[in-house]
Amino acid sequence: MPTGIKQWIQQVTDRALEILDLKSDGIPLDDLIALCHAVLSRRGEATGLALAGSVVSAWHGLKQSDHLGFFQSLIDEFGPDQTRLSQAIAHYQEALDDASAMSLHQSAESQRQELFRRMNAAPDGLETLILMREALRKLLRDHPELRPIDQDLVHLFTSWFNKGFLKLERINWQTPAAVLEKLIQYESVHEIQGWDDLRRRLAEDRLCFAYFHPVIPDEPLIFVEVALVQGMADAIGPLLDTPPAPPVSADTAVFYSINNCQPGLAGVSFGNLLIKQVVSVLQAEHPKLKSFATLSPIPGLRRWLDTEGLEFLPLFEASIHHDELKPLVAKYLMSGQGAKLKDPVARFHLGNGATLERINANADLSFRGQKESFGFMVNYLYELDDIVSNHERLMETGQIATSKEIQQLLKKNIKHKVKELSYDA
Amino acid sequence: MPTGIKQWIQQVTDRALEILDLKSDGIPLDDLIALCHAVLSRRGEATGLALAGSVVSAWHGLKQSDHLGFFQSLIDEFGPDQTRLSQAIAHYQEALDDASAMSLHQSAESQRQELFRRMNAAPDGLETLILMREALRKLLRDHPELRPIDQDLVHLFTSWFNKGFLKLERINWQTPAAVLEKLIQYESVHEIQGWDDLRRRLAEDRLCFAYFHPVIPDEPLIFVEVALVQGMADAIGPLLDTPPAPPVSADTAVFYSINNCQPGLAGVSFGNLLIKQVVSVLQAEHPKLKSFATLSPIPGLRRWLDTEGLEFLPLFEASIHHDELKPLVAKYLMSGQGAKLKDPVARFHLGNGATLERINANADLSFRGQKESFGFMVNYLYELDDIVSNHERLMETGQIATSKEIQQLLKKNIKHKVKELSYDA
Amino acid sequence: MPTGIKQWIQQVTDRALEILDLKSDGIPLDDLIALCHAVLSRRGEATGLALAGSVVSAWHGLKQSDHLGFFQSLIDEFGPDQTRLSQAIAHYQEALDDASAMSLHQSAESQRQELFRRMNAAPDGLETLILMREALRKLLRDHPELRPIDQDLVHLFTSWFNKGFLKLERINWQTPAAVLEKLIQYESVHEIQGWDDLRRRLAEDRLCFAYFHPVIPDEPLIFVEVALVQGMADAIGPLLDTPPAPPVSADTAVFYSINNCQPGLAGVSFGNLLIKQVVSVLQAEHPKLKSFATLSPIPGLRRWLDTEGLEFLPLFEASIHHDELKPLVAKYLMSGQGAKLKDPVARFHLGNGATLERINANADLSFRGQKESFGFMVNYLYELDDIVSNHERLMETGQIATSKEIQQLLKKNIKHKVKELSYDA
Amino acid sequence: MPTGIKQWIQQVTDRALEILDLKSDGIPLDDLIALCHAVLSRRGEATGLALAGSVVSAWHGLKQSDHLGFFQSLIDEFGPDQTRLSQAIAHYQEALDDASAMSLHQSAESQRQELFRRMNAAPDGLETLILMREALRKLLRDHPELRPIDQDLVHLFTSWFNKGFLKLERINWQTPAAVLEKLIQYESVHEIQGWDDLRRRLAEDRLCFAYFHPVIPDEPLIFVEVALVQGMADAIGPLLDTPPAPPVSADTAVFYSINNCQPGLAGVSFGNLLIKQVVSVLQAEHPKLKSFATLSPIPGLRRWLDTEGLEFLPLFEASIHHDELKPLVAKYLMSGQGAKLKDPVARFHLGNGATLERINANADLSFRGQKESFGFMVNYLYELDDIVSNHERLMETGQIATSKEIQQLLKKNIKHKVKELSYDA
Repeated sequence: MPTGIKQWIQQVTDRALEILDLKSDGIPLDDLIALCHAVLSRRGEATGLALAGSVVSAWHGLKQSDHLGFFQSLIDEFGPDQTRLSQAIAHYQEALDDASAMSLHQSAESQRQELFRRMNAAPDGLETLILMREALRKLLRDHPELRPIDQDLVHLFTSWFNKGFLKLERINWQTPAAVLEKLIQYESVHEIQGWDDLRRRLAEDRLCFAYFHPVIPDEPLIFVEVALVQGMADAIGPLLDTPPAPPVSADTAVFYSINNCQPGLAGVSFGNLLIKQVVSVLQAEHPKLKSFATLSPIPGLRRWLDTEGLEFLPLFEASIHHDELKPLVAKYLMSGQGAKLKDPVARFHLGNGATLERINANADLSFRGQKESFGFMVNYLYELDDIVSNHERLMETGQIATSKEIQQLLKKNIKHKVKELSYDA
Repeated sequence: MPTGIKQWIQQVTDRALEILDLKSDGIPLDDLIALCHAVLSRRGEATGLALAGSVVSAWHGLKQSDHLGFFQSLIDEFGPDQTRLSQAIAHYQEALDDASAMSLHQSAESQRQELFRRMNAAPDGLETLILMREALRKLLRDHPELRPIDQDLVHLFTSWFNKGFLKLERINWQTPAAVLEKLIQYESVHEIQGWDDLRRRLAEDRLCFAYFHPVIPDEPLIFVEVALVQGMADAIGPLLDTPPAPPVSADTAVFYSINNCQPGLAGVSFGNLLIKQVVSVLQAEHPKLKSFATLSPIPGLRRWLDTEGLEFLPLFEASIHHDELKPLVAKYLMSGQGAKLKDPVARFHLGNGATLERINANADLSFRGQKESFGFMVNYLYELDDIVSNHERLMETGQIATSKEIQQLLKKNIKHKVKELSYDA
Repeated sequence: MPTGIKQWIQQVTDRALEILDLKSDGIPLDDLIALCHAVLSRRGEATGLALAGSVVSAWHGLKQSDHLGFFQSLIDEFGPDQTRLSQAIAHYQEALDDASAMSLHQSAESQRQELFRRMNAAPDGLETLILMREALRKLLRDHPELRPIDQDLVHLFTSWFNKGFLKLERINWQTPAAVLEKLIQYESVHEIQGWDDLRRRLAEDRLCFAYFHPVIPDEPLIFVEVALVQGMADAIGPLLDTPPAPPVSADTAVFYSINNCQPGLAGVSFGNLLIKQVVSVLQAEHPKLKSFATLSPIPGLRRWLDTEGLEFLPLFEASIHHDELKPLVAKYLMSGQGAKLKDPVARFHLGNGATLERINANADLSFRGQKESFGFMVNYLYELDDIVSNHERLMETGQIATSKEIQQLLKKNIKHKVKELSYDA
Repeated sequence: MPTGIKQWIQQVTDRALEILDLKSDGIPLDDLIALCHAVLSRRGEATGLALAGSVVSAWHGLKQSDHLGFFQSLIDEFGPDQTRLSQAIAHYQEALDDASAMSLHQSAESQRQELFRRMNAAPDGLETLILMREALRKLLRDHPELRPIDQDLVHLFTSWFNKGFLKLERINWQTPAAVLEKLIQYESVHEIQGWDDLRRRLAEDRLCFAYFHPVIPDEPLIFVEVALVQGMADAIGPLLDTPPAPPVSADTAVFYSINNCQPGLAGVSFGNLLIKQVVSVLQAEHPKLKSFATLSPIPGLRRWLDTEGLEFLPLFEASIHHDELKPLVAKYLMSGQGAKLKDPVARFHLGNGATLERINANADLSFRGQKESFGFMVNYLYELDDIVSNHERLMETGQIATSKEIQQLLKKNIKHKVKELSYDA
């Protein structure tokens, strides 16, 4: 069936390009821009979809060095219609009602959005727009003037990747290789070394779940890796290395890696829902599981010490009494303004309703783990019953949900400890 | 898997309702509105999805007599934030750039849109919003002040039902009964009398295609019924009645019924793409097919005669020389302003790039066919090669693509014929 | 893909028929027999499969009046090779070992079996063989000499429909219409009146399961209908008529209809496994279900009274004290020689490990129910824990598993009751 | 659903083992044999399936050193029932009719067959029987007395793997990894070096097809690898190494590797049908393909030279004029008695209706290619139109279908050439 539509697109495209006297192959930037204008100028859809298809394929043919030029044209030529917008403002200021606000809303919309919507209708449209944003984001730092394009795309993606449209799928050895190889490619927390390593991560005592969008079924959007183990894991090494164990005896599900797959979808969030949905699936299927926790990195610990905790830095660098430093790690994890915690991973999980459960020393012996967080990792606990109240409390009072163990840690006189430790050091 | 998420939604919803001290069952209108505010007031998503789920199920529990009240609250309490909008206007008028226009665009958006987006994320959200618009549309005539809600929903539906997301599916006797019964229910052009009649329409020499949205896979959005026959069919009766014939000898595909299924999606168009896509599928699969044409009703013929062609009315009512009246029918079909043709079906197909091919007298002997169009029907021809240019010409010059046969008809001195016929009558 | 192979079969068939100077269409009986010989005479498979395909399609073209002739030829010309068999016997009698017995086994096999095996390899082969046996069985009574063909087919079917190959599928409103219409057609215990009636039987508080063979996925082999109710149902009427109830409160699954679908597979049993498998599925999915029982007919009750219980017949015909007659019904149900019970349904369920749980008077008010069993029905209880021991006991000692209620019934002095009742009558 | 049945099997098995006072785990050989007897002694199926399940799992627990003992017990204790067989012989010799032959056929069947049939009904039964035969075949050479077991299994497998039950599936990068890894494992003609190499073989200009049995959907039975190329390939290296080319321009499909995957199914042939079916699929999907040929090894060439062609051996070992030796290679390929050709690959393809098309020197430079056939390979051509007549002619007259090129080769005075070459050498 998709063949059918693609053939037809091709036919109509060829016809339309003929009429417009354009080429779609190796199209120069100017022609691509002309094509974009054509997409919008058509009043009907007889050619619209086909032209949009041409834009999609032409964009793939664009040289990388033309990206900037392309985006600048999108800013220069495809913004909102200023005249129409001014009239809408005037009209609204007179009427001050919903109808005129709606009309104002529509008039303030950039023409880019309509262009992107039409591109999305074409074959491979959605993937192309995701890639386009990926390309755009590389230029944003140096070209902040392109930010409105980013906002347009985020606005559309937020609508198209509405959670109601996402499908949770189980990833295992029955999954098509085309999807599995993407896991290898996208895993950035704890790298997958190849097909054999992947296989270990999909063995009987491991689970993997991903969100997919029905329009791009081969592209995982985000995936989470779970280990079924006895007791809450306190180090990442054994999770990655140990041979498969019979899952029967497991009482804990440890979420040890969560990866966003599409840089072009940065900021369109799925992760918070994913964990909760997986927890609920696991509860139903593995009634023997008693707790659901992450084993998470602390990516900002060293940065914090470098800037705000300089006095403690030598301790972290020198000490072998890692356990003694846990209070400091806890302090860092909980630092920030209200719900805006400093550590991005803590911000994500605690903001998501999890509990700060346990800090583990010597938990990540990898180079990166040492560099970022001196080997410390943390367990965040997900109890579905507490998620709502934890989240509420954090949002309204800034209070962070912590386990008794963490509460004990926090009572310790860190300064004193530090001094003591200083002598040791 | 869906079970998992639904159970979880239920758990979190129960917890959230407890906190908010609300009930979701048989919820009174006031509480539903409170719930809607709660959905928007939550800053995170820990509860958002669950609360949105409550709104969805509460809406289904709403009495029909409360619909109006509900929609009025949506207007009164969920419009754009006026203060924020005024500031955005001021800011834009100062900066006059894309960024401030984007911010104006966002500020002018009603809060309803965000409410609907969050509802869409909940289970059954999309179906519910479609039903909600269906309910809304019944009230619009008497309550035009509700129109902004309609615009909000159309805006969102246009995004969510982007053609890139629709799936063309073949409907046949292998299709689940749950979908087939909807065909029986939704067919409004040529009613399906029950399962046996349906079976005839899905026999070997008949085809049926529908668009589906992946999120509501049991709900056809629009479907088209096709007969594979020899020669372009000139009457509907034989198409519906004749026993199946071997499809081998067919040289023509006749599209004899196109039905939109979701009143709540009125104005979100799929039909134009559907026909072209089906034509391209049929071309690939049935290389012996030479032409692709509709057999279409002329719903506005009598209305036109009643208003503008009164002098001809008696002829239509009395005449048995139906063929002599074809020029008049052609004249009606082509009347209108540019592409805005009077006859809605002609407007659709000709605007879609088809050619006005042939007019058939005594083609629809049903009560409705007689009443609306004195039994006349029309074939619109779809030639993929001409679609683009036909459409272009119509849009730009208002010129309608016609067959030689129609051109001959148009040359006839209708007035004269009419006089002649008058004597006969 | 299937298209591919069918086209190829056609090509090769055409070529092979050309060489053999035969026609496949409207083939006369003699040519069909010649074709059957050709299938076996080919030493390789280059043409074998294609020729087998010709036999399959030719058989469908055979007039019904030629069936007998066809089967007689199968007896006359496709029995075992007598010479080879005699040699194998001599060889075996000399060697008396496994190898010579194996060779004897092979030599005693009729050539029909190889013919049927080759037909099975052709498209539609299996369906055709099932239909062929259906046709054969109609002739067996008058032509017992054809019985060896029946045995050949049963031998092959037993192998091909090995339980390891069957797939249990849930039937519901999501099932393709092509399968559902077969349920309507095949239900013979409690007739389905049409699509609306079918829908009732697939409502939320009803379940339906069927076995399928992967090669003929549109053809259910056997299906069972289950009602989820409160308490063990004691009459069939309410099960068929009552409107759907929420399944939440159900504590009992009642198997109220079991139907074999393929007359051509008579004697190739699936039913015993089906019930147990469905019980185990239901236990897993509906943990609130406490008991699993049938509501079964007693097809042989009147026949028994007519032959062995003539003295009681007037009581059954006249009495309104139906409850008083239950001991007699119990006596009938338990009569027979060891596990060879007289009542076929009792033989099936009790031999299958079920318990004779309860007898219900006025349970089937239909014409057939009155005629066969004076309205009595019976519940057989399936407790997975007892199935093995019940079955063992029945097989080894002929002892039937009964509930306390039935045991009480059996203690009653039936003769006495009968006399008493006689006065009443 | 499968879960359901497995749980039930487990329940009933546990119960049955309890009654029989046996253990299923780490079961000793004696107990396994007792279990086998129990499977057959049960008269019903209430326990049969469960017991069969126990046998299946117990067999997996058997030590390899117990295999021989197990098979010997199958011979000693599960042969045909001699008494019953003698009676059946007597009865047949008296009656000499089909019915008594059928009864003889049944009596001569070993009890093993019924045991295996019941095992097949249990979960994992079929895989287990295939593995069992694999284990058996390793012992056959030293224990020819076990051969009847092999014959029993082949008899059953031939029935269960009837071609009507096999499904042709396309293997590509969308195929589950669980299946793909088996390709890597099973490819024995031209080894697959890992996932990257596999990926090359599944690129756009390569195709792979396999037969599957619906009961073991993860286990390919046989697969064929196809290269779409321009012109009939004359060497294997480029096929394995070259980067993907656009398939548009290909005019030839080269079957360069065919692999049986299940040693336990040796002698149950699928290959002949596979190639023809794939040819017909390719013809339909790639109308531009003009010819279909293999690029096949000549595994017996050196063996033949070693035994019958000693005088030529030095030439093959020394010569660089490989082309001059082609007539000898052709002669070898065509040598044999009638259709029983010496070279197993030639026997397969020519017996299958292919044409001996071309001999290629320096076609396989691998160690194995040099060792077995001095680098020679051969193209067999598959023309669907000629397959039937080629096959017929070979079977009936022993005449081999050859191309003109081969016919030219054969005319050459090989002896003379040899002499000439001798001088060179």
